[in-house]
Amino acid sequence: MYALIGKMVTQKGQRDRLVAILSEAAREMEATADCESYRVHVSLDEADTVFIYEVWRSEEAHAASLSLPEVKEYIDQAKPILDRVERVAALELRT
Amino acid sequence: MYALIGKMVTQKGQRDRLVAILSEAAREMEATADCESYRVHVSLDEADTVFIYEVWRSEEAHAASLSLPEVKEYIDQAKPILDRVERVAALELRT
Repeated sequence: MYALIGKMVTQKGQRDRLVAILSEAAREMEATADCESYRVHVSLDEADTVFIYEVWRSEEAHAASLSLPEVKEYIDQAKPILDRVERVAALELRT
Repeated sequence: MYALIGKMVTQKGQRDRLVAILSEAAREMEATADCESYRVHVSLDEADTVFIYEVWRSEEAHAASLSLPEVKEYIDQAKPILDRVERVAALELRT
């Protein structure tokens, strides 16, 4: 399985708004057969910082999800409050 | 819940040996009530690189686990093949 770790830094004070958007997205994605996990966290060390841990059936399944209309809608909601997004790691899950 | 992302770089060619050690450790830790997840991954981008994603009941529960004799044993097994260990993030799980 294919796993991703992403880091998102929001504009000042917008962290919890981003968490709310991503939590809704997480529920929808985990309801699909392709997405095993979509977990949303806040950093204990850095302000305005959210980390995502995702596990997908395959890299292709993840790529396909980005074209779904409902996922595009969440991306559109998040974009205006984001400062930057960083892909921390692309991984193959072993256990 | 308290989540941790860790990155471990092994000495050349030792990645899968580290994965084997950590996978055994993962099984034991996930069998305890304090550890919700302990997942082991290999990097798709960097050689000899392993990422761990852990979720614990609390930061204290994680700290306590490091003193368990069986965990110390895994640490002792891994140490000789490790090049460096990096804490990527300490997190609070939101979903």
